[in-house]
Amino acid sequence: MNKKIKYGLIGASGKLGHEVQSVFAEQGHELVFAFDIDGEWKTDTPEILIDCSLPEVFTKSIDYLCKYEVPFIIATTGLSNEDLKTLRTLSLQYPIVQSFNYSIGVQVMLRLIKQAKNYLDTWDIEITETHHRFKKDKPSGTAKMIQSIFEPRKINTSSLRLGNVAGEHEIQFGSSGEVLRISHSAFSRRTFAEGIFKSAEFIVEKKRGFYTFEEILFKE
Amino acid sequence: MNKKIKYGLIGASGKLGHEVQSVFAEQGHELVFAFDIDGEWKTDTPEILIDCSLPEVFTKSIDYLCKYEVPFIIATTGLSNEDLKTLRTLSLQYPIVQSFNYSIGVQVMLRLIKQAKNYLDTWDIEITETHHRFKKDKPSGTAKMIQSIFEPRKINTSSLRLGNVAGEHEIQFGSSGEVLRISHSAFSRRTFAEGIFKSAEFIVEKKRGFYTFEEILFKE
Amino acid sequence: MNKKIKYGLIGASGKLGHEVQSVFAEQGHELVFAFDIDGEWKTDTPEILIDCSLPEVFTKSIDYLCKYEVPFIIATTGLSNEDLKTLRTLSLQYPIVQSFNYSIGVQVMLRLIKQAKNYLDTWDIEITETHHRFKKDKPSGTAKMIQSIFEPRKINTSSLRLGNVAGEHEIQFGSSGEVLRISHSAFSRRTFAEGIFKSAEFIVEKKRGFYTFEEILFKE
Amino acid sequence: MNKKIKYGLIGASGKLGHEVQSVFAEQGHELVFAFDIDGEWKTDTPEILIDCSLPEVFTKSIDYLCKYEVPFIIATTGLSNEDLKTLRTLSLQYPIVQSFNYSIGVQVMLRLIKQAKNYLDTWDIEITETHHRFKKDKPSGTAKMIQSIFEPRKINTSSLRLGNVAGEHEIQFGSSGEVLRISHSAFSRRTFAEGIFKSAEFIVEKKRGFYTFEEILFKE
Repeated sequence: MNKKIKYGLIGASGKLGHEVQSVFAEQGHELVFAFDIDGEWKTDTPEILIDCSLPEVFTKSIDYLCKYEVPFIIATTGLSNEDLKTLRTLSLQYPIVQSFNYSIGVQVMLRLIKQAKNYLDTWDIEITETHHRFKKDKPSGTAKMIQSIFEPRKINTSSLRLGNVAGEHEIQFGSSGEVLRISHSAFSRRTFAEGIFKSAEFIVEKKRGFYTFEEILFKE
Repeated sequence: MNKKIKYGLIGASGKLGHEVQSVFAEQGHELVFAFDIDGEWKTDTPEILIDCSLPEVFTKSIDYLCKYEVPFIIATTGLSNEDLKTLRTLSLQYPIVQSFNYSIGVQVMLRLIKQAKNYLDTWDIEITETHHRFKKDKPSGTAKMIQSIFEPRKINTSSLRLGNVAGEHEIQFGSSGEVLRISHSAFSRRTFAEGIFKSAEFIVEKKRGFYTFEEILFKE
Repeated sequence: MNKKIKYGLIGASGKLGHEVQSVFAEQGHELVFAFDIDGEWKTDTPEILIDCSLPEVFTKSIDYLCKYEVPFIIATTGLSNEDLKTLRTLSLQYPIVQSFNYSIGVQVMLRLIKQAKNYLDTWDIEITETHHRFKKDKPSGTAKMIQSIFEPRKINTSSLRLGNVAGEHEIQFGSSGEVLRISHSAFSRRTFAEGIFKSAEFIVEKKRGFYTFEEILFKE
Repeated sequence: MNKKIKYGLIGASGKLGHEVQSVFAEQGHELVFAFDIDGEWKTDTPEILIDCSLPEVFTKSIDYLCKYEVPFIIATTGLSNEDLKTLRTLSLQYPIVQSFNYSIGVQVMLRLIKQAKNYLDTWDIEITETHHRFKKDKPSGTAKMIQSIFEPRKINTSSLRLGNVAGEHEIQFGSSGEVLRISHSAFSRRTFAEGIFKSAEFIVEKKRGFYTFEEILFKE
């Protein structure tokens, strides 16, 4: 993405939206369209559309996608299976990236856990996740992604709520006499904004298709 | 305890009993009386009595105490309030040490947590304890001791069961922007046997009285 | 500090300066004077003066203190013994708070370490500190504060440089069979700004005197 | 290895030798030959030979291998390149397993680190290893194995010496805003004895060939 592009941002005033603006500005890209709780703001037609908003806004986001007909990156969590199906269908016409977590470290962690499972599936396993005191859902979405790697085995998961911790996940494999641990700590939302930027670099030249952040990271 | 003493051991064949024998033998003390699941074994009259057994054996232990009339150290966990009252009464006649945890590090940790509470009582607090897969009670006795420091405030406590971890406890205090952690890991039961030995050194010359391991460590 | 006050800030454009402005603004206090690399800016006479700048600016800071004759809080690190002596002398006329670390958690950690030393001075001890890759001095100032607690004993200290970690310190006490750990993680500079605010609340009504942040926290 | 086998043990009286005897006895295998600092002891001809001794004994070990002509497992650390070449040559006639670390968890950790390197090679990296106070070589052999994965890049490695910690290794990958950690803790030497047992199961039916523990674990 050496050329400067004009991008649109849905959920521009949220915490992640702010980080996205900061990362894209540093690379010289120009925000030309924004939509958030304060309404719509536009100076030009966007060449790419990024959605950092909430599931409630999903229909509106899709309207914008169909209006501008540009590559679309969505970071919204809590989407329904129905919503995901809609995205799949739209990806026949537009290039779409969808993921619940745009941290490179988390994606690498998930990959390492899948490999560890090949060798340590019979060991005791414990998952721990720590987040800021305002996070209400337990366990976290990322912890659920870790749990799903071991299905149908159920993995005990402890949820800690502490200060303003941005997000920590740990998995421990224990056997007689040894413990192997894999953990990830996120300090700031900038990490996620950088993953979105990496996705934008990937998708901006695509014609159509559905991509996960994991695919972009590991199948390049 | 420079002079060699003859000691008796209730629960001699248990895991902690073995460690006690090993620590006392290294110091040249002589096991002259043992009682365990295989019955009684005796070569001489003990000058001190150590109990590393189970609450079910408590009445039998008291019988031996009253028979030999010597200093008594009890490490049994799961004693009832009734049992503890009995020990208090008997301590008017005999010197008695009672504790649920004879690790020096755990006692220091409890002391540090009490001090931290003075400053960080308004912070978010999380307790985590990790033990071997065969430990059934949750949370651990030591975790309960930590919880009780903060009463009536309830502290969320996560219990992990992993391989053959001997015992790990962690408390985290979290505020906006920072986390303070205090943790303790026990690698082997020898730690507890050494605390029992330290208690024996203290009590062997006493005439009567009730002592906790904490008092022995910190009020010397 | 229920009443709104007018404050001055030296080093206003630095990272910590920004955090101080943000914390003070939330409490309704008004920035009326600033000095930084871009020069001086003033709308009114300050009732209190905060210095988040560098040792090179120290003489200039003292000039401002003598000009405005108000309570003074200094967070500059790397001050010389000469500088500290100057502050002591000035504190006969003005109330002054000086500390190298305004994090509450770090001050509590230091206090806990002092207590732990009373019991575990014969154990093996290891200090580890982790900071962002741009931190050049090793070990960190806070690690040196921990080391000094154990003088004349020398404590091995490992310095890790990793990503943009704001600051982590850990001390481990190890004996046969057990390890006790005390650690502190700072996620953001806001922590330090809040300590400065707490110091401001304390000092604003004082007439004169020299105070450390530790004294303000623990002797209130 | 369902059938009971008769095994020989070089270095039988060392710490690892004791653990090997304990693991093999639990499986019903019979120690029929031992060699250690106290000399030779023999009740029957061994069907397999295990070497848990020191590099100084290597020539003697090879004599025994050539005498009994049986599968050979060697756990000796500090072997020279010359020694390893000798083993390769002998493996044309006998089946041989050689490794510097028979812990399953360590081997899985090394494998995960190799995978993580594929994605995080540009991140900051720090290695930490903690061992008991009596370990003199720094860094540990396993830490060197981790370092070698990243060659020619040099990875900063911190060595901590603490109590009687059996062995802990941690690698941290840090980027702006996130840290990924992989760590392994060994609590007891039994872990290594179990890896040797697993190697024995593998090699007992082989005719010849050179195998590493890693190959046995991952290429089965």
